[in-house]
Order: sequence, then structure tokens, then C-alpha cells
Amino acid sequence: MIFRQLFEASSSTFTYLLACEEQGIAALIDPVLETVGRDLDVIRELGLTLNYTIDTHVHADHLTSATKLKALTDCKIVYPKQADLPCADLHIEEGKVFNIGSIALHPLFTPGHTDHHYSYLLDQGVQKRVFTGDALLIDACGRTDFQSGDAGQLFDSIQTKLFSLPGETLVYPAHDYSGRHVSSIAQEMARNPRLGNDIPKEEFVQIMNSLDLPYPRKIDFAVPGNEACGICPPNVPDYLRSPCDIHDQG
Amino acid sequence: MIFRQLFEASSSTFTYLLACEEQGIAALIDPVLETVGRDLDVIRELGLTLNYTIDTHVHADHLTSATKLKALTDCKIVYPKQADLPCADLHIEEGKVFNIGSIALHPLFTPGHTDHHYSYLLDQGVQKRVFTGDALLIDACGRTDFQSGDAGQLFDSIQTKLFSLPGETLVYPAHDYSGRHVSSIAQEMARNPRLGNDIPKEEFVQIMNSLDLPYPRKIDFAVPGNEACGICPPNVPDYLRSPCDIHDQG
Repeated sequence: MIFRQLFEASSSTFTYLLACEEQGIAALIDPVLETVGRDLDVIRELGLTLNYTIDTHVHADHLTSATKLKALTDCKIVYPKQADLPCADLHIEEGKVFNIGSIALHPLFTPGHTDHHYSYLLDQGVQKRVFTGDALLIDACGRTDFQSGDAGQLFDSIQTKLFSLPGETLVYPAHDYSGRHVSSIAQEMARNPRLGNDIPKEEFVQIMNSLDLPYPRKIDFAVPGNEACGICPPNVPDYLRSPCDIHDQG
Repeated sequence: MIFRQLFEASSSTFTYLLACEEQGIAALIDPVLETVGRDLDVIRELGLTLNYTIDTHVHADHLTSATKLKALTDCKIVYPKQADLPCADLHIEEGKVFNIGSIALHPLFTPGHTDHHYSYLLDQGVQKRVFTGDALLIDACGRTDFQSGDAGQLFDSIQTKLFSLPGETLVYPAHDYSGRHVSSIAQEMARNPRLGNDIPKEEFVQIMNSLDLPYPRKIDFAVPGNEACGICPPNVPDYLRSPCDIHDQG
């Protein structure tokens, strides 16, 4: 298996490349429109074919490159079933293993940041990794104050689906804003300031409901854009248009 | 392969269990006297035989359980060649792979915390891990103000031997004092406040030489004790003797 952790700086998003070496098949988890060229270069250099883009949820802070990548590579667009997106070619569902060649990805339904959010567990025995999207972040978690978010639901998702994994399981989030790259379930259970140390659900909900975060900068065009699997909608402000222009030219 | 990250709370030490499943052979990296019973229980539950204890260096903050484990299991005691310990059965040397059954451990000579310190690289292609002992810690590094420490040498070791590894390589240190369990080379290169972000050597040396840390609590008996591979010396103060008493009884 080939594994790469890639970073898009303007939205602090991690994109993950997973590839089955024997079959030459690759997938990208949470690819970003701004970094289409970089991601395709990596795939080309490794001699791989991109078969799938897999989003953890409909993002509100960046546009997915799913449609752009499909246009360029003929890959399939994969989204959670609960997102109910007609633009998706395949739908992820808990209990149904998603195969990337010989790589088995186990979808874990982890709503709360959005009502359709999934995490993806890659269990290779010797090494377990979980791609936690915007549910569990390092020393943090995704916000729950917009786009069908629900703090109590996020708490339950993390406690039952993620904190029940073996402590050594590596945590790879969709974002980090402080240069961190990786954590483990044991680490988050021990020291996540919002979720660790057996914090009661009521306390977590209270923390989340009093965060008073600014309105997400891109949400008004990113959500409808991502509901179309990454088509730039017309209302993108000029100062944020550059990835859309690349898209339009491509 | 079996991998376990174990923790000893009084010295905040991580002990790592590596085992070759097919051959049933295990090794412990940096085992601690206080947790001999716990470590042997884990090995027994997994149906393994302990073949090796491998220290990254002569520790000053805890006593190794190497001798105790040898007495109980007939394992071999492994130490860096440069530590020059007559009590060691086998000696680690850079350039010579150390095999635990089918697991290949690559010793990297990383002096600076002590003059004989090693890190151990486990390269499984799909996943690279480096056990960094007290050289590179998460967001920190080992102190360099006693026991043959040298800040300039530590800087060179980390920059040339560790920061030259692929960014995805997981960093597993011998200690963490804040509940962190794992990092990656990319993460430490980006945000380690002492060593990241291309800090110049002079600045690192200045940081290290002005830390003004307290005198290590156990150093006066831990260093001679560990130079004997974990024999409790007579000068252990009463309030720290309990693991030695366990040792004497065993």
C-alpha cells in the first residue's frame, strides 16, 4: 500500500492518498480544488491511476476537487449515502467495506459536525489508521454550529465509533491549524481538551455551544458547490475565485 | 507484526513492544523497572517469548528493567555499542540491521542527549516508525546539560539522521509529559519549537544552554544502576526504593 498525507494551506486541509500498489489503483480522501495539479502530479509520479475521490462529508470551508478530478481522470466520485448527492457515482455506507484494489476501507458513520459525516478506518492489523474528517481533530473537533451540526450527536459519534478503537490507532484528521499531522486514539482520549479525560456529554455540549466562532468565510458558496461535488457556483467572491478560474479553464 | 505502546507514569516513559508474530518473538524498547509485571503480562497474553530488551541509551530518569527481565525470561540485553556496557549481551551499531525474527530494526546513531544515544527505525514500506528515545520528543527534545550531553551534537543528529526521513515517518519518543503519544517527522520539522521551522544551529544551542532545568531527581542512582543494566545500586533513597524492592524480591 502507498500512503501520502498532503496539505492544502489556504483551508489547512489534509488530503490523503491511499493506493493499492499491486493493482496501481489510487483514491484521494478529501481532495481540494486548489491542489488538483499537485495531487495529480503525485499520482502520476507514483505510476498510479486515480479510481476514486472519497469525501468524508460536504465541506463548508473549501471546495472539493471531485468533479474536476473526474473530468481529468474519469475517476468515480464517492460520498456518504446520507449526503444524498445525485452527483456522486458511489455511496459509502456503514457496514459495507469499500475496496480500493486490495485495500479495505471501513466506513464509520460519525454524524455531528454534519448529519451525514463519515470517518474511514483502514485496519491493516500491524497498523490501524482512522481518517476522522471534521469529526475528531487533534486536540479539538469539528464545529457543530451550522450545516446540520449537533454537539450531542458528535459526542456520541466520537465516544462510540472512534474512542472504541484500539488506543494505538492513528488519527488522521481533515484539518489542522497548528502544524500537527497525526495523533492516536489513546492520545485524544487522554488529552483532547473538549473530548478527552472522560468528559461528561453535558460539559462537551456546553463547550461547543459557547464557542462563539466567526461565520465560515466560504460557507455560502462552498456548501452548494460541494453539494454539486465541487462545481464552482456563481456567487464565489472575486478574491476567492482563483481555484474556480483554474477549474473553469481545465 | 505486533506493536504496542506502553506507558510508565512515574517517569512518563514509553516502552515499545515489537513482536514477530510468525516466530512468536518479542522485544521491548526502553522497558522500565516499575512496570516489569505489566510488560510480562502483555507478552504472555499475546503468547510471545521475550527475546530482547533494547535500550536507546543509559537513562538518567528511571531504571531499566533489562536485568530483571533477563532473570525472569532469559532474554538478551541489547545496548548501543558506544555505551560500552559489560552487562549487555548484544551491541547495536549503525549500519548493522538488528533482527527481531523477521522485523528489521535499523539503528541510527543520534548522540547529543548522551554521547551513545541511538534511535531505531522500523521501515515497513507501508509504514515507517522511528523510536527516537530522548533525542527527539514531541514538540521538544531531550536535555543536553548532563551525562555527556552536547546541544550542537543533538542538533546535528536530529537534522541529519531524523529530519532526513520521509515526512510521514511516525515519531515514537521515549517520553511525553503532556499525554501526547505520536508525531511525525513532518510535524516535528514544522512545529517543534526548539528544532522545527529551519531554526539555525546557534539558536538551538542557545535555547538548550539557557533552559536552566532542575537537577534530575534520580540521576545519582539511575545512571550507575543503568550502567549495570538496571541493578538497583545501594544509594537509592527510601522514597524511591519500591521498584528496587520488587526487583530484590523477584
